Amino acid sequence: MRVYERPVRFEEVDAAQIVFFPRFLSYCHEAMEFLFDDLEGGYVRLVRDRKIGVPAVHVECDFKHPLRYGDVAWIETTVEKLGRTSVSFRYAVARASDKVACANILHVCAVSDLALLKSIPIPEDVRAALERHLAVR
Amino acid sequence: MRVYERPVRFEEVDAAQIVFFPRFLSYCHEAMEFLFDDLEGGYVRLVRDRKIGVPAVHVECDFKHPLRYGDVAWIETTVEKLGRTSVSFRYAVARASDKVACANILHVCAVSDLALLKSIPIPEDVRAALERHLAVR
Amino acid sequence: MRVYERPVRFEEVDAAQIVFFPRFLSYCHEAMEFLFDDLEGGYVRLVRDRKIGVPAVHVECDFKHPLRYGDVAWIETTVEKLGRTSVSFRYAVARASDKVACANILHVCAVSDLALLKSIPIPEDVRAALERHLAVR
Amino acid sequence: MRVYERPVRFEEVDAAQIVFFPRFLSYCHEAMEFLFDDLEGGYVRLVRDRKIGVPAVHVECDFKHPLRYGDVAWIETTVEKLGRTSVSFRYAVARASDKVACANILHVCAVSDLALLKSIPIPEDVRAALERHLAVR
Repeated sequence: MRVYERPVRFEEVDAAQIVFFPRFLSYCHEAMEFLFDDLEGGYVRLVRDRKIGVPAVHVECDFKHPLRYGDVAWIETTVEKLGRTSVSFRYAVARASDKVACANILHVCAVSDLALLKSIPIPEDVRAALERHLAVR
Repeated sequence: MRVYERPVRFEEVDAAQIVFFPRFLSYCHEAMEFLFDDLEGGYVRLVRDRKIGVPAVHVECDFKHPLRYGDVAWIETTVEKLGRTSVSFRYAVARASDKVACANILHVCAVSDLALLKSIPIPEDVRAALERHLAVR
Repeated sequence: MRVYERPVRFEEVDAAQIVFFPRFLSYCHEAMEFLFDDLEGGYVRLVRDRKIGVPAVHVECDFKHPLRYGDVAWIETTVEKLGRTSVSFRYAVARASDKVACANILHVCAVSDLALLKSIPIPEDVRAALERHLAVR
Repeated sequence: MRVYERPVRFEEVDAAQIVFFPRFLSYCHEAMEFLFDDLEGGYVRLVRDRKIGVPAVHVECDFKHPLRYGDVAWIETTVEKLGRTSVSFRYAVARASDKVACANILHVCAVSDLALLKSIPIPEDVRAALERHLAVR
C-alpha cells in the first residue's frame, strides 16, 4: 500500500463547484504511476523507453463525498490482483484533512505493448515492483 | 436514445497517444447534458438557475478499443433506470467512422440540490424529459 | 476569417466560477484547426500522416470579459501574417449571445516537422489553405 | 523569487507528444498560488473565504523549448510589478533536469472581488505577501 497526497487544483472543480468526477480517475492514475517508483526509471521509463503501459480495461467507482478546491486528496493505493497479463489497482480516496472517505475505485489494466496496443505477459521486474503493493488479505 | 458525436481533441490523448481513459467520462457527461435538451433551458439552466444537478454516485466502464486524435466518438445514450431520486445513464461509445465499439459505460447519479449536495426527488419536468430516453426493454 | 462557436463545458470553469483563462487558448486551438478544413484531411491528417504541425512560439492575450458555464464562445479567426516558416493567427473571442468581447489573442506558430521539432518552409498546399483566411487590411 | 517544480503528467501532452502549450499557463497558475503561501491560509482561503482572486487581464508567452512526459517543469516566479489594483507575475519555465529554458511568461492580473468581478485595491496583507517576491532590479 502506498499513500499519494494531491491538492485539488483551482481549475479542477466544475460548475457545481466540486471536483469533476472524471478527475478522480486522473488523480488515481497519478497514484498508480507513483507505485512504479520502485521500478528503475519509474512509469515514465516504462512507457517512454520500453513502450509498455497499462491501458484500462475496466473501471468501477463509488463516489461517497465530494472534494472541493482547497481540499487535498489522500489516496491509498494497493495492487488487488496480479494476473499473467493484467493488474488490478484499488484506490481508497479520502479528504486528507479529516480522512472522510470520498471514493473507492477499482482499475483493471492490461499490461500492453503500446506500439501494438496488445496485452503482454507482465515483465518480471514490473511484477516484482507491483508485488510489493499487493493487498494483504 | 440519443446520439452525440464528438471529435477527439488535439490535447485529449496521453503519452500513449490514445484518449486518456478518464476523458471518456467527460465525453459521456457532454452526451448526458445533451439528453436534457428537451428540458426548458437544458442542463445549463437546471444547474445554474435551479441549482439542481446530477452528481455521480457510481460508475462502471468497460474499455474495448482506444480512440485516437482524428477519431470522432459516437455516443449512444439511454436512460437505463429512473428511480425516485436517482437516474442511471448508459453510454455505448463507438468510433464514428466504422462503429467499432470503444467503451460501454454505466453512470448512476443522485439528482441533487447542489447547494446542500443532498439528493432530492426528481422534479416532474426533469423526469418527463428523461423518460423519453428510457431504454426499450 | 472564419467563425467557430463553442459552448463552455461543465468542467471548464475554475474555483472562481469563470472559464479558467488557459482554456481560452484551448478554444483558440480548436478554432485554428478549423481553419485547416480547406486542406485535404484537415489539421488531423497534417499532424498524423505528414507529421507537420504548428507549435506556438509566441502568444499574447488580452482578457476583457469572463465566460461562464452556459455561455457559448464565438471565435473569429484570421491569419494575420504568413511568413516563410511561420504563421500568426488572431482570435477575437466574444460571448455568442450578445457579442460582448471577451478576449483578443495573437498566436504565432512555427510550422514544424514534428519528428525533429524544427521549423520548415510552409508547404504550398498549407499556404494556399491559410491564405484564404488572411486578414483584410 | 520562488521555485516551483512540477512533473509533466501522463495526460498533459498533445497529439504532437509535447506539453500542450496552454498547459504552461496552468503550471504557472500553480506556481502563482504557491507565492501566496506566506499569506494566512494561502490562495485557497483568499479565494474561498474572502472571495478575492486575481483574474488574468493580459498574458504574454514566449515558447523556446518543449516539455515532454517524463520531464519536470522548473518554474521561477517573481512579482514584476505591484500596482494599486493589479499585480504582474513573471515566470521563467525551464526543464528541471538541465535547466534548458522552455518558456518565459508575463501574467498581469487584476486583484478582484470575485462576487462582483470588479478590481479592488490590493489588501494590505496580500500586498505584504507579494512584496517579498518582488523582482530585484
